[in-house]
Amino acid sequence: MAEAEDLAIPRGFRAAAVRAGIKPSGGLDLAVLVAESNCAAAGTFTTNRVCAAPVRWDRGLVPSDSIRAVIVNAGNANAATGTRGEEDVRRTAMLAAEALGCRPEQILVASTGVIGHPLPMENLQAGLHRALAAVSAAPASFREAAHAIMTTDTRPKVVSRRLEIEGRQIALLGIAKGAAMIGPRMATMLAFLMTDAPIRPDDLQAIVSEAVESSFNCVSVEGHTSTNDTVLVLASGQASGEPLRGAGLSRFAEALRESCEALARMIPDDGEGATHLITVDVEGCRDRGQAKAIARAVADSPLVKTAIAGGDPNWGRIVSAAGYAGVPFEEHELSLWLNDVPLYGAGNPLPFDAGEVSRRLKAERETHIRLRLTHGDAAVRFWTCDLTAEYVRLNADYTT
Amino acid sequence: MAEAEDLAIPRGFRAAAVRAGIKPSGGLDLAVLVAESNCAAAGTFTTNRVCAAPVRWDRGLVPSDSIRAVIVNAGNANAATGTRGEEDVRRTAMLAAEALGCRPEQILVASTGVIGHPLPMENLQAGLHRALAAVSAAPASFREAAHAIMTTDTRPKVVSRRLEIEGRQIALLGIAKGAAMIGPRMATMLAFLMTDAPIRPDDLQAIVSEAVESSFNCVSVEGHTSTNDTVLVLASGQASGEPLRGAGLSRFAEALRESCEALARMIPDDGEGATHLITVDVEGCRDRGQAKAIARAVADSPLVKTAIAGGDPNWGRIVSAAGYAGVPFEEHELSLWLNDVPLYGAGNPLPFDAGEVSRRLKAERETHIRLRLTHGDAAVRFWTCDLTAEYVRLNADYTT
Repeated sequence: MAEAEDLAIPRGFRAAAVRAGIKPSGGLDLAVLVAESNCAAAGTFTTNRVCAAPVRWDRGLVPSDSIRAVIVNAGNANAATGTRGEEDVRRTAMLAAEALGCRPEQILVASTGVIGHPLPMENLQAGLHRALAAVSAAPASFREAAHAIMTTDTRPKVVSRRLEIEGRQIALLGIAKGAAMIGPRMATMLAFLMTDAPIRPDDLQAIVSEAVESSFNCVSVEGHTSTNDTVLVLASGQASGEPLRGAGLSRFAEALRESCEALARMIPDDGEGATHLITVDVEGCRDRGQAKAIARAVADSPLVKTAIAGGDPNWGRIVSAAGYAGVPFEEHELSLWLNDVPLYGAGNPLPFDAGEVSRRLKAERETHIRLRLTHGDAAVRFWTCDLTAEYVRLNADYTT
Repeated sequence: MAEAEDLAIPRGFRAAAVRAGIKPSGGLDLAVLVAESNCAAAGTFTTNRVCAAPVRWDRGLVPSDSIRAVIVNAGNANAATGTRGEEDVRRTAMLAAEALGCRPEQILVASTGVIGHPLPMENLQAGLHRALAAVSAAPASFREAAHAIMTTDTRPKVVSRRLEIEGRQIALLGIAKGAAMIGPRMATMLAFLMTDAPIRPDDLQAIVSEAVESSFNCVSVEGHTSTNDTVLVLASGQASGEPLRGAGLSRFAEALRESCEALARMIPDDGEGATHLITVDVEGCRDRGQAKAIARAVADSPLVKTAIAGGDPNWGRIVSAAGYAGVPFEEHELSLWLNDVPLYGAGNPLPFDAGEVSRRLKAERETHIRLRLTHGDAAVRFWTCDLTAEYVRLNADYTT
């Protein structure tokens, strides 16, 4: 993955970010990602029944072969805003379409921030005009876009890479945001990936859905599925040539999955108040669904998360979380390692140096939990963060 | 519900509690509840696949018509302890059976405390002999038993009541413990209820299962289902007469349900670090299962719990938690009240005095969340507590 300094910018895309006056802080809060010409686009969205107005708008439009822009604001989720929220999304798409000379149905929209407040449309409209007039293909513009979509994130989340597939030079760039209201049954908060690879929309949708399953759907902060989760991937095709297929498409799919995993992992790593990034590996399961259910139960247990925060090798909390995941197993089929130290083997507690394990938990930012069953070959990797008093402080007074 | 000072003690039961040296604090940690003669007994247990050795023992014994005692220790869960744990339970039952002149299969056992450590059997054995020699029917003995089963609880949890059914005076007494590792797919931590009502074991099992469904299965602290959850109800029959049936049995079942609900409610009210007891009412659902799924999602959301802790009427977190509960609904079918103030009506945000709602949230220990759908008549009431920095502090360093 490239550092932000030498971002690979896919041909055919421009970006800009402005201070539209949506965030009370007055910071960057409106990003636009604009394609020079019609793009293939695919996406996945929150499964929350209470979903934001922009999610409903986008869902009706992707996969598509003619997307021209993504308009993203932070500071206001435009969720649970009733009919007013629907009108505001349509109006945003119309304003962008007018400026770009296309139809509103070629504009995707995303929002993140506080739920239940109407968008300040005058501010948004003025900001949108300024942003669309300022788009550029400079890496700095994409970095500013990654900044503009942050809410309680402490740092922007960007990945980029160059690949060569069948002699064609392809660039892949992605940005994401999210530090709380991160739950695992969805397509995380907001992530936007762009490429110049030529890909048919249906192929793009298939590989996006697959990539999301092992990346954004494998992270959590506190397990609260958001109303606004959106992952969008835009492919301009400007790397030229026939649409990717077969082995070339598989190569691209793998690169996309790796980029999604890298972005996804940044989210719990920047989780609100987090002091540990926790990787949960669950192996030896009958199928991925069972492995993921166990990983999610462990990752979302406040007792597991507080133990890691405290550097406490309280492994009973981990095996007991596995036990209520809804996956049938017997205790003698279960084994546990914490940072590679075996703590529980085939249903029996193992002797270990608790002081040493605790010291390592406290000293290292990354924690590795490995659970193994004896049922089969299915495995899953899941990422979460610890739960600290700082998370509680941050969330005890967010709107008022 | 009677205060602890004038407990109604069911005829035929005695209790004692001792300091056996299982808790590091040196406090009361072993309670015995002894029946003078064979009792009907019924129970419900954790659904966790990693379950404590005493849970496996009891599960094989109830419902029963010949239970003589319940032996309960705190300070050690005897969970995830492998074959050694199984042997320790059997030995505990044998020791109690010898002292009481009955078979080990007439002894129920329960444990609560840290997971994964073997029971200190020498201490337990010595304590058990002292406890069984000290049993009495005095209210103080039952109050001490309620103290002895506490772990991080700040207060003992006791209910008692007298009823008259078909001319018979019946007493019902219950004790419970639990302040964390409280999840809702189970039969809460530990609760023991005793009555002198004459009831057949199968009838008792049926009414216990039903009572648990709307009481202990409707509370959570952080949603982590314990390995040791156990609810046991013992009926000595010493109120005399034929076993209850028909209307008399229904009267008793209602009293048992009310007692279970009163005990259950005490658990999140004493939740670790809790500053608010939160009641979640979900109404207008197709069935109780859907209502409970929504109530559980709201009750277990760290974002909802931290908002209440902060006195923040951030209602978007509540409706969005309802939205990921797995229950299909449209937003216009959903309405929300917080402490009886309407905040969200048929899918639209309602104007309200945020300062006043926040003041009341901060001033009152109890918070009432009411969610209504338009699907049917099913409703559920669920209890939880808020999530504070103190919960994190308590759980970041518990074993080591």
